[in-house]
Amino acid sequence: MDTGHRRADEQGFGERIAAAGVKEPVKTYLLRCAEFHSSPAPGLLIGAFMVDYALDLLHATPDEKLFAVCETPKCLPDAPQVIAHITTGNGRLKVLPIGRFAVTVNRVSENPTAEAVRVYVDLEKIKNFPVIDKWFSNSPEFHKHTMGVALQEAIFKAGRGFLSYERVRVPVKIKEAWKPVTCPTCGETVPDYMVVDGKCGACGSMKYYEKI
Amino acid sequence: MDTGHRRADEQGFGERIAAAGVKEPVKTYLLRCAEFHSSPAPGLLIGAFMVDYALDLLHATPDEKLFAVCETPKCLPDAPQVIAHITTGNGRLKVLPIGRFAVTVNRVSENPTAEAVRVYVDLEKIKNFPVIDKWFSNSPEFHKHTMGVALQEAIFKAGRGFLSYERVRVPVKIKEAWKPVTCPTCGETVPDYMVVDGKCGACGSMKYYEKI
Repeated sequence: MDTGHRRADEQGFGERIAAAGVKEPVKTYLLRCAEFHSSPAPGLLIGAFMVDYALDLLHATPDEKLFAVCETPKCLPDAPQVIAHITTGNGRLKVLPIGRFAVTVNRVSENPTAEAVRVYVDLEKIKNFPVIDKWFSNSPEFHKHTMGVALQEAIFKAGRGFLSYERVRVPVKIKEAWKPVTCPTCGETVPDYMVVDGKCGACGSMKYYEKI
Repeated sequence: MDTGHRRADEQGFGERIAAAGVKEPVKTYLLRCAEFHSSPAPGLLIGAFMVDYALDLLHATPDEKLFAVCETPKCLPDAPQVIAHITTGNGRLKVLPIGRFAVTVNRVSENPTAEAVRVYVDLEKIKNFPVIDKWFSNSPEFHKHTMGVALQEAIFKAGRGFLSYERVRVPVKIKEAWKPVTCPTCGETVPDYMVVDGKCGACGSMKYYEKI
């Protein structure tokens, strides 16, 4: 946690999950997600319900080898990471900066494509949950400091109530073979397929730091 | 885990950490990282030592609000996620597909830039650790199935022995204000700043699935 005081939506977080009657395994998912993320962000909590829904639709368990695409970088990607070992570092999670609140999950496949399930926030259904709708649409009527707790309670009570899904087909990622190449500018080695214009990305368009 | 049998480098993993004399907190970091990642991948284990080193250099604790840039998507990004709540979903982790094995960590800052520490695998120092060097350089002399255990032991014993660091300055990310925009093609809403050519990315260049 980054501050000494706790945010209003963190106080009584566990109690609210229980009071809303959230069942296992989602109850545990929510607690683990919030701990990992370092706050119980609304998008993350919705993400936990979404991933649980996707697993059910695939008849999959969190210990299987699964892959996911998140259509937003905001909060959602931490749910598949915490719940189902679909992580940034193990290459099973892809995040696309599309901006839709949706996650697509599939099993490992030997084929060039895999059947997947895409779970998304349904813009029609969400109208039945006014507080969630206001938060989701970034409405000026939503006030984070006074409505955070109500939003959290609404999310716990709604569960899958404003989610929908569709069956889709996704391409399967192929692991690339590589050889190390020494960047002529910085002298460090990078995989050959990551070289851009004869040098490593950090010495080109991906430069992100200055030495001090 | 994705298969019924355990890989050779997973059997006795905890015992090897102890036998190599790895101290806390890294011992616990290694176990937690492997569980999250769903395997004790060598790059992940090195990443745990790197993040621990970066925290020491910053005199920071894992519970502070920290940010990181990983210069490779492979394995490494899971270490800051597990160890220091620097996650893909909370926006504190950035992964650049540069291909260098390096991580840059900084504290939260009110300024446009922040002082950071960049920890990297040192190509000179790694020569003192032949098994690690062979694996790192993707040498045909490295055989995953027969040398996996030796590699793991070498990583535990080496610790920070083949790492170096430099002090750097990085730009601080600004949170973007946004309004929802309805994509004319799919009818879903996305933040205005993510619209590309009048539609959402999923209806354009970021299309990644077909309905079935």
